[in-house]
Amino acid sequence: MIDPWSSALINYEKLIEQFGIKPFGDLITDIENPPMLMRRGIIFGHRDYGKIVKAMREEKEFTVVSGMMPSGKMHIGHKMIVDQLIWYQKKSADIYIPIADMESYSARGVDFETSRKFAISEYITNYIALGLDFRRKNVKIYLQSENKTVSDLAYLLSRKVNLSEMKAIYGFSGNTNLAHFFVPMIQVADILHPQLEEFGGPKPSIVPVGPDQDPHIRLTRDIAERFKTSFKFITPSSTYHRFITGLTGGKMSSSKPKTAIFLSDSPEEAQKKVMSAKTGGRESLDVQSRLGGVPDDCIVYELLLYHLVESDDELAKIYHDCKSGTLMCGECKNKASRMMKKFLDHISDKREDAKEMAEEVLSGDLKC
Amino acid sequence: MIDPWSSALINYEKLIEQFGIKPFGDLITDIENPPMLMRRGIIFGHRDYGKIVKAMREEKEFTVVSGMMPSGKMHIGHKMIVDQLIWYQKKSADIYIPIADMESYSARGVDFETSRKFAISEYITNYIALGLDFRRKNVKIYLQSENKTVSDLAYLLSRKVNLSEMKAIYGFSGNTNLAHFFVPMIQVADILHPQLEEFGGPKPSIVPVGPDQDPHIRLTRDIAERFKTSFKFITPSSTYHRFITGLTGGKMSSSKPKTAIFLSDSPEEAQKKVMSAKTGGRESLDVQSRLGGVPDDCIVYELLLYHLVESDDELAKIYHDCKSGTLMCGECKNKASRMMKKFLDHISDKREDAKEMAEEVLSGDLKC
Repeated sequence: MIDPWSSALINYEKLIEQFGIKPFGDLITDIENPPMLMRRGIIFGHRDYGKIVKAMREEKEFTVVSGMMPSGKMHIGHKMIVDQLIWYQKKSADIYIPIADMESYSARGVDFETSRKFAISEYITNYIALGLDFRRKNVKIYLQSENKTVSDLAYLLSRKVNLSEMKAIYGFSGNTNLAHFFVPMIQVADILHPQLEEFGGPKPSIVPVGPDQDPHIRLTRDIAERFKTSFKFITPSSTYHRFITGLTGGKMSSSKPKTAIFLSDSPEEAQKKVMSAKTGGRESLDVQSRLGGVPDDCIVYELLLYHLVESDDELAKIYHDCKSGTLMCGECKNKASRMMKKFLDHISDKREDAKEMAEEVLSGDLKC
Repeated sequence: MIDPWSSALINYEKLIEQFGIKPFGDLITDIENPPMLMRRGIIFGHRDYGKIVKAMREEKEFTVVSGMMPSGKMHIGHKMIVDQLIWYQKKSADIYIPIADMESYSARGVDFETSRKFAISEYITNYIALGLDFRRKNVKIYLQSENKTVSDLAYLLSRKVNLSEMKAIYGFSGNTNLAHFFVPMIQVADILHPQLEEFGGPKPSIVPVGPDQDPHIRLTRDIAERFKTSFKFITPSSTYHRFITGLTGGKMSSSKPKTAIFLSDSPEEAQKKVMSAKTGGRESLDVQSRLGGVPDDCIVYELLLYHLVESDDELAKIYHDCKSGTLMCGECKNKASRMMKKFLDHISDKREDAKEMAEEVLSGDLKC
């Protein structure tokens, strides 16, 4: 069982074997101008992505649904989702962004008002700063607690889900509080509601997630099938991305500041974090010259791979130079930390402008 | 365990002993002008009704919450609830009437639109015809599916209820669908939401129910206690009424037309039903003259007791004449059936006028 609320590292290959997630590499050649997360295998798996490839190729309508959990500061690992949304926005997808205030309440007891404020000041502000364009009509963002269409649909769909299933999927037990039972159904409705008549009817949809969210995806796909007669849902597609490793070697987590570079870190602070990150370097410069470094086990390299180096050629050169022993960790970290500083300088500037707009995004005052 | 969704007859005394329901008779002398349902022991039990007695005596604000289930035609047994609401309306209570369309969906798969139409044409129309005055500002009626305040509160409260409790109270099992888990929380919120700040804050409230609904009451009272710090809820009070016996001896049920006199029955049809109802008569007139009849085991007498005879003296005389063998079943049934015809004639007239108003009651077009 995959527990979507734990933060364990995942053996990605097992997922592909055991749970029927398909390797993303098999269809990447069908995608026009794939983004670097796809090209580099960070998006490693999918369910039914063929439907999305087809929709993009034929310029048909499709939907992306990607929620934000308004708790914990946004770190560089979270940027992956925004990168994908920006790419899909350019592909003319309709983008739905539920803000998971109901989940934040059930899991952590955070009240809706606190979630709302945090979503604006931290998440929406950063989404704008990173380049998602909320002025375009194809982005719809909402608080789960305020979306009656979604909660109504969640209730309607819940009639064909039973307790045993919920226990099997989520490991719920006797002392699980009832709010926990409602939230997965809200998420199912988050994903399926863009296919309701009032939003243009059935269409392909894609949910880009980490593999820990696959239980939600499977439940949603099952429920979509069960209501095929009444709602004509097209079973949603999904993609799965690897998680960037934290600076100390485990998972990058907002609740462990030492593991993460936050988007709100000062550029200097972030530089220091990069300089002290675990690398794939050898015990001495001498040994490294001879044997080469280990980029596949290097957090600095991951930062370059996931975020900092846009050019595949440039990245390949760094990889090769490291492996061949000509690029040493000191130089590489210097370079990475400069790039990180530049990126955070940029985001920090953008964020200043984004703050006001972020308020308007949720109040509906933003002009499209 | 009392199952609120079954229709079994209940041993009322056991309820008082086992579940801590208090005998209503103990406080009836404290009530000014009690209605006949109270005087005659049809309302036989209560929890915490002292709070309501006090509120009425001191002319303080209090609330009555009484839902309607929009499925099945309304029969004479349902009239009891309306009689109580009318009495409380005269006592200046604020009356809240949730229409249980969410429950009707979870239990029977009835969609919200069907429930809405049926609530108007059958229930609200009859409530008006029976005399509940929806023009007064102290009556608030709503569809559960349309009341976001209620569903939000249901969700907030659900964080302090766990799966084991729901199983223990309602006997839910693995194949219970999830909608069934949400509905009791909606009912809890139906009862507690009039105590929210926006409705004037904490105040005594009374829920008049049949004993089969006591599990809901106990759950609601427990939850009110759990949220005392945050919401300052005053634990709701409840009263319990006996169910009128069906015409064939079992429970009176909308789904078994032969057991029930419907408010929409033609007066002639209803007369026939009264004439053929099971009585407490003896095997022959001769034996009955000698031993007397058995009004305590007579459905015709129940009709008189619950609904048709307003005067206690007149009822006592009938009871006495029956027991003493001077009043025979033929005469008594004739009298009862004439009273029933008169009542249904009256309701039928009133219902004609009520139809238009019933539409407006839910649309909010009704002028107060």
